[in-house]
Amino acid sequence: MSDAGTRVRRGLPGLSYPEDYLKRLAGELTVKFAGVFSAETVERYVLESYTALLRTSTVTAHLASRTVRFATDRLTALAQAKGSLGTGVPEILFVCEQNAGRSQMAAVLTKHLAGGRVHVRSAGSAPARELNPAVIAVMQELGLDMAEEFPKPLTDDVVQAADVVVTMGCGDACPVYPGKRYLDWGLTDPAGETIETVRGIRDEISARVTVMLEELVGA
Amino acid sequence: MSDAGTRVRRGLPGLSYPEDYLKRLAGELTVKFAGVFSAETVERYVLESYTALLRTSTVTAHLASRTVRFATDRLTALAQAKGSLGTGVPEILFVCEQNAGRSQMAAVLTKHLAGGRVHVRSAGSAPARELNPAVIAVMQELGLDMAEEFPKPLTDDVVQAADVVVTMGCGDACPVYPGKRYLDWGLTDPAGETIETVRGIRDEISARVTVMLEELVGA
Repeated sequence: MSDAGTRVRRGLPGLSYPEDYLKRLAGELTVKFAGVFSAETVERYVLESYTALLRTSTVTAHLASRTVRFATDRLTALAQAKGSLGTGVPEILFVCEQNAGRSQMAAVLTKHLAGGRVHVRSAGSAPARELNPAVIAVMQELGLDMAEEFPKPLTDDVVQAADVVVTMGCGDACPVYPGKRYLDWGLTDPAGETIETVRGIRDEISARVTVMLEELVGA
Repeated sequence: MSDAGTRVRRGLPGLSYPEDYLKRLAGELTVKFAGVFSAETVERYVLESYTALLRTSTVTAHLASRTVRFATDRLTALAQAKGSLGTGVPEILFVCEQNAGRSQMAAVLTKHLAGGRVHVRSAGSAPARELNPAVIAVMQELGLDMAEEFPKPLTDDVVQAADVVVTMGCGDACPVYPGKRYLDWGLTDPAGETIETVRGIRDEISARVTVMLEELVGA
C-alpha cells in the first residue's frame, strides 16, 4: 500500500473553525432570544447552521456573515412557530431543489410585490453552492438586487413557521405538516437555461405570485 | 398565465409529517439524555434530523427508523463532546461527499478490524439518496452487512465528538476544529465504477484502516 495519498491537515487558513466568533455570536443571539430559547439551543443552532452552510459553500469568506443571517432567521422562525414572536402577516415559504433560482426569485418577487403585507423565506432540498448568475441578472433587470442571497438547506423550523408552503420541483423532499396550505408550482428549472428562458421563468413566477397575493392579502 | 401547473397538496399519504411519532421519540430521548440535554434541545434534534434525512431520501418508509438512529447518534456525539458521556476509546469520523461509498466502507471495515478498540461514525458533505449497490455487494463478499446503513449529512456534533477526522474527497466541506487529528485519504470515488474497481477501493481502504489502527491502538 502506498501512503502517497494521505496528508495530514492541521488548521489550514480559511478552513479553520472560527470557534471564538461562533461562540460570541451564540452569546449575542442568546441575549436576543432570552426568555424564548435556552443558551444551549441557541449555541446548537449557531454551530449546526455554520456546518450546514459549510457543506455546500465554495467561498468560505462569506460563511461567517451568512451563518449570522441563517441562524438568526431559523431561531426567528422557531420563535414564530412557538407563538413567542408574531409578524402579524402571513408567512410564505418557497422551496425548490437548489434554492439557487426558482425559490429565490419567488421570495424576492413576493417581497417586492407584497410590500410588507406578507413575510417570506426560501430554502432548498439540495442547496447549490451559489445562486444561478442568470437569475441574478434577470432580477437585476427589474432593479431587484440578489447579491446578499445564498442557498440554504430546508430546515424544520422554517416549515413550522410557515402558513403557506410553495414547492417548485423539490419532489417529496418537503415535510407536509398539518395546518398549513401547500401549493405546488410546476416551473422550468433555470439551471443551465439561456437568459431568455430564465427571464420567462421570472415572469411566470411574478404572475403566479400576483395571483397568490390577491388571494392571501387582497389585490 | 396558465394555472395548470399548480396543485394543492394536503397530507398526501406517506409524505405527511409523523408529528405524534416524532414527539413521542423526542420524549423518549429526553428521558435517555436527562441531565445532559434539555427537552427543548432534544426535540430540536429529533425534528431537524427528520427534515435533514427527508431532504435526500427517496424511500420514506425508512425515514422514521432512520430518524431514531440519526438523532440518537447525534445526541450521543454531542454528549461525548461535552464530556458527559465517554466511550473510553478513540472516536473516528469518516467524511466523504455522498456518504454512500468510501466513508461507509471505511466505517464498517474499521468496526470490523478494530473489534471495539475504537468507535466509528461516518457522514457526507452532500449525502446521496441511498448507498451505492456495488459497495453493498463488495462488502457482502467479506460477510459485512450494510443493509441498515444510510447516507447522513455532516453535522457539527459528530465533528465535535471526533478525535480523528478522515476526509476522503469532500473538498473543504469539513470544518477543521482545533485539537483534532485530520487525515485526508486520496481515494477513487466508487460512484459509477465497475464492481472490480469498487473491490479495489474496498481493499485500499482496508489497508489504510489497518495502518491507522496500528498507529492509534496498536497492532
